[in-house]
Amino acid sequence: MTVELISVGTELLMGNIVNTNSRYLSRKCAELGFSLYLQITVGDNEGRLCEMMKAALSRADIIILTGGLGPTQDDMTKEAVAKVLNRELIMDEASRERISSFFKFRYGQNAVPPVITENNWKQALRINGCIVVENDNGTAPGYIVETEGKTVILLPGPPSEMVPMFAQHIFPYLKKKQEKVFVSKMVKICGVGESRAETILIDLIEGQSNPTIAPYAKDGEVHFRITAAADNEEDAEKLLNPMVEELYKRFGDNIYTTDEEESLEQVVVKLLQEKNYTVTTAESCTGGLLTGRLVNVSGASDVLREGFITYANEAKMKYLGVSSDTLKAYGAVSEQTASEMAKGAAEVACTEVALAITGIAGPDGGTIEKPVGLVYIACSVKGHITVQEFRFMGTRQRVREQSVIYALDLLRRSLL
Amino acid sequence: MTVELISVGTELLMGNIVNTNSRYLSRKCAELGFSLYLQITVGDNEGRLCEMMKAALSRADIIILTGGLGPTQDDMTKEAVAKVLNRELIMDEASRERISSFFKFRYGQNAVPPVITENNWKQALRINGCIVVENDNGTAPGYIVETEGKTVILLPGPPSEMVPMFAQHIFPYLKKKQEKVFVSKMVKICGVGESRAETILIDLIEGQSNPTIAPYAKDGEVHFRITAAADNEEDAEKLLNPMVEELYKRFGDNIYTTDEEESLEQVVVKLLQEKNYTVTTAESCTGGLLTGRLVNVSGASDVLREGFITYANEAKMKYLGVSSDTLKAYGAVSEQTASEMAKGAAEVACTEVALAITGIAGPDGGTIEKPVGLVYIACSVKGHITVQEFRFMGTRQRVREQSVIYALDLLRRSLL
Repeated sequence: MTVELISVGTELLMGNIVNTNSRYLSRKCAELGFSLYLQITVGDNEGRLCEMMKAALSRADIIILTGGLGPTQDDMTKEAVAKVLNRELIMDEASRERISSFFKFRYGQNAVPPVITENNWKQALRINGCIVVENDNGTAPGYIVETEGKTVILLPGPPSEMVPMFAQHIFPYLKKKQEKVFVSKMVKICGVGESRAETILIDLIEGQSNPTIAPYAKDGEVHFRITAAADNEEDAEKLLNPMVEELYKRFGDNIYTTDEEESLEQVVVKLLQEKNYTVTTAESCTGGLLTGRLVNVSGASDVLREGFITYANEAKMKYLGVSSDTLKAYGAVSEQTASEMAKGAAEVACTEVALAITGIAGPDGGTIEKPVGLVYIACSVKGHITVQEFRFMGTRQRVREQSVIYALDLLRRSLL
Repeated sequence: MTVELISVGTELLMGNIVNTNSRYLSRKCAELGFSLYLQITVGDNEGRLCEMMKAALSRADIIILTGGLGPTQDDMTKEAVAKVLNRELIMDEASRERISSFFKFRYGQNAVPPVITENNWKQALRINGCIVVENDNGTAPGYIVETEGKTVILLPGPPSEMVPMFAQHIFPYLKKKQEKVFVSKMVKICGVGESRAETILIDLIEGQSNPTIAPYAKDGEVHFRITAAADNEEDAEKLLNPMVEELYKRFGDNIYTTDEEESLEQVVVKLLQEKNYTVTTAESCTGGLLTGRLVNVSGASDVLREGFITYANEAKMKYLGVSSDTLKAYGAVSEQTASEMAKGAAEVACTEVALAITGIAGPDGGTIEKPVGLVYIACSVKGHITVQEFRFMGTRQRVREQSVIYALDLLRRSLL
């Protein structure tokens, strides 16, 4: 099966947004074992879209279009596809109903109902003979059209709508078109740099055939996708498992999961739940990002009841009992302060575990002894405190994000 | 002038990396006032690349290719372009010299000089009759080929090499092809949905010529880019300003900035600084994300010293003094609790301003009266408290992100 992607949107051609949809869909096509030969981006222009659409239909088995399904005049993906396939657009009553309740829900039962502007109803039109795919995160539905042995799929542009729609509805639909069974695991590694990780696996990467092994770099983490193809799931897993075991041999505890859907914060929350521990946080330069990541996990309330954002020295003293002598002698960004933050947070919040971060995120505030990127992370587990020093590279945002990942990883290792 | 981009690289088709080059080059083309109609991504496949290259030559004035200039067998962009343009590849002595010194520099004068493998010299071949463009950050030079009124530009794939090469050499080269000057502003709007915003501007959007007006949706915000073209900057601004004023007339306070680089949190921090106010936060379902956004702003420490993450009811009582009667009578997700959270936070932290969020982010915990997505946001300014009710759609993550944006916007409006 060959696939082509067509991204529609002048905002992509203007460079206002990065095309993450193409990346996501490319990965998913690889997972499905489809061959993706082309990605095309066109603006909100019916003529050019029709031209690209015709060319794609002449080459590929499956065409996936994203964007241009919204309510505005610009949005004309559906119209262009209908034209190329020579099909009518007809009103879809179910979609009309859904849009209406979307607005009702959004503004509440007792609120003055908003005027649903006429252009919104454009989103309720469907291509004759298509499958309408529900959108749980917005008003524009997706569409699947089967036509003369080809499949055309239309998806909304915003990634927050496109990704869940693809994962829930389109992926299972396309999977049925694949005769081989592909089974894959995502080996997620923390605490080892990308190039070192690749060096450790170079013989496996160079010698790969089935299963395949593909690296994906992520800020502060490295992921390897291992994929095996076979006639059935059982055979695929027989091929897959020895490779995964080999990676465990080489990376050990640095692997925190092999489950694609499982995040580092989920692993950490699970470990805390298993031990029946509660956790609190004390954040300086990250200013809430660490706790925000933990609260990503639905059910985090079992283990996390409160956290402290102590950005100023006074706050570190007032809420966490960091001593002014420590702050004077070693500074706010020091092993000692990080340690007292963790200790104090655990005591005040009465938790078994506390995680503290203090550092210089930049761009200002660095000195020769304490440069931008210097971060101390402390983890207290039942009174036993570990502090680690890091020197991160990059922008303010990047230093803070890496701090969060390494803090979660320190907590994970402390709980193992 | 019309432009097409061709990105070359199987890693893009596999979804291993996000195509940030296309975004960068698209922005630069917009800045230059060129019309970019198509972005194409192909793998390391000579046949398909030649086909795309021929089609692009038939449509566009300028074709920019990135990737496939490296030393390995996969890399064949130069070869494919030479073939399509019917030109020879010849050895470029200056490039040969540069590659040789790059290796010397990289490994240091005193190190054992590395063996420069034969494939590296492939990078010293140039297309006959082209301009060779120096690469200060790698071994593969870039190339400019002028051919029958068309310009073909070849750039290396790694953004760390491509971006500086484009900025230093290609941008000035292309600027000479543009007679007009382009000036643009980004009008950023909060609190108005995308389709409503477009309805408000529909006459301007439909009647646009110079300046142009283009909408960009962002989660919870809407941005419009207004661009004017003229013979000089002054004239362009004269065209631009009345349109920006017109948008102010129509959207008023909903516009928070017209500066492309300015974020909502920056505007909020600036307003707080101007009034000499300090702020604190009390977060339940967002669990630190709001404060994390504020701390994005370098210099946030002027206005924010501490924040409270009070996920559990006990924490809301213990740190913020929310009364247990209120929690019993109205629940944690209620106007009353949000209001007491803001009031308590301001008192405990001794700040002029406090922002509190409590809501049901899901996926669990919703009821008929209080569904997932119900969020209360309270803002206290010098004891005067405003509470707003929202009903957000989408995943846990999305509900939380929207809560943060609307909280920042409520704070902004409260300070105006």
